[in-house]
Amino acid sequence: MKLHGYFRSSASYRVRIALNLKGLSADHLPHHLRRGEQRDPAYLAINPQGLVPTLQDDAGASITQSLAIIEWLEETHPEPALLPKEPLRRARIRAFALALACDTHPVQNLKVLARLRELGSSDEQVTAWAAWANREGLAACEALIADEPGPFCFGATPTMADLCLVPQLANARRFGVDVTAYPRLLEAEAAAKANKAFADAAPERQPDAE
Amino acid sequence: MKLHGYFRSSASYRVRIALNLKGLSADHLPHHLRRGEQRDPAYLAINPQGLVPTLQDDAGASITQSLAIIEWLEETHPEPALLPKEPLRRARIRAFALALACDTHPVQNLKVLARLRELGSSDEQVTAWAAWANREGLAACEALIADEPGPFCFGATPTMADLCLVPQLANARRFGVDVTAYPRLLEAEAAAKANKAFADAAPERQPDAE
Repeated sequence: MKLHGYFRSSASYRVRIALNLKGLSADHLPHHLRRGEQRDPAYLAINPQGLVPTLQDDAGASITQSLAIIEWLEETHPEPALLPKEPLRRARIRAFALALACDTHPVQNLKVLARLRELGSSDEQVTAWAAWANREGLAACEALIADEPGPFCFGATPTMADLCLVPQLANARRFGVDVTAYPRLLEAEAAAKANKAFADAAPERQPDAE
Repeated sequence: MKLHGYFRSSASYRVRIALNLKGLSADHLPHHLRRGEQRDPAYLAINPQGLVPTLQDDAGASITQSLAIIEWLEETHPEPALLPKEPLRRARIRAFALALACDTHPVQNLKVLARLRELGSSDEQVTAWAAWANREGLAACEALIADEPGPFCFGATPTMADLCLVPQLANARRFGVDVTAYPRLLEAEAAAKANKAFADAAPERQPDAE
């Protein structure tokens, strides 16, 4: 398999964790987002959104969107499971993941922040916007798992929720958010960071890290 | 079942279509987003994001996030299927849905546009922002299904992709996007609009429509 990504991309980071947890290896093909390499026509042919990640399977077929890739990995390599069997539990975990992947991360990604600058926002306003998006998402996620047993988001083992949480907390800190407001999320992050699959997927451990 | 929603909410609209396609009924509980009813403490207790939709199952358990609800409906009421059986096909359909649900809709929702206004953007700039988000997403989706047989997004029957497409096209038109640039998407929309499940889910057919 090949994973087209970028060391600092949260969505690529999610998929790297999933691959590691499942013991799968992939060739990592970096696309430097700040240099616009994701807009190269050859890359757009496999990912028309011009976003990372894209996973190519052994036959060369492309899958875009991190959560679609993770669901595909779960269906084709079920062990260890990133979702439990029971539908309501699966739904709760997916909802947590989507609260970050839909309503938080895309509102503060590179493309949206660049657009804000084009509209005349100052660096300070752009950072405040990104921090706001992170606080809204993380506060909701803290509430979503308030009654869930730890140490991970949904119990004793990592799920799709933790794959989305760890990269998002890294973003939140980058934008100056006081993450101590989310103790339950930090408990899950600590459990994740002690896990080699998560540690090896960290941005600073990638070959394209700067 | 109970569906907490809002007639004009794209995410609620997706779930209404899914319920109709599967022949399921739910009590529809409207929350008027422009009046801030989704911020009522009683509602926040079941949906900490303060967003619609939320589905409550017959036992009263809450599920948030439209795509998590749709996956749950698919798992608990598999027929008619909104995703095929083959993992790569499922991944392609989910990726299309996520391109709209993650990277398009949240960037142009009510909350983000209100925040733009707070930053001093004019009505014209806000509409241009929303139109931009729609064009980016729809153009990518047009490319994602360029080689897919019609009339629906992914073949002869509606899938999760169509559930996301139809509400997004309605938004795009509202923001003045020239949707004739996306003929393959319009073909899928025409097939959907001829289907009673989609027609009955339309915003203007809901009891809370204004």
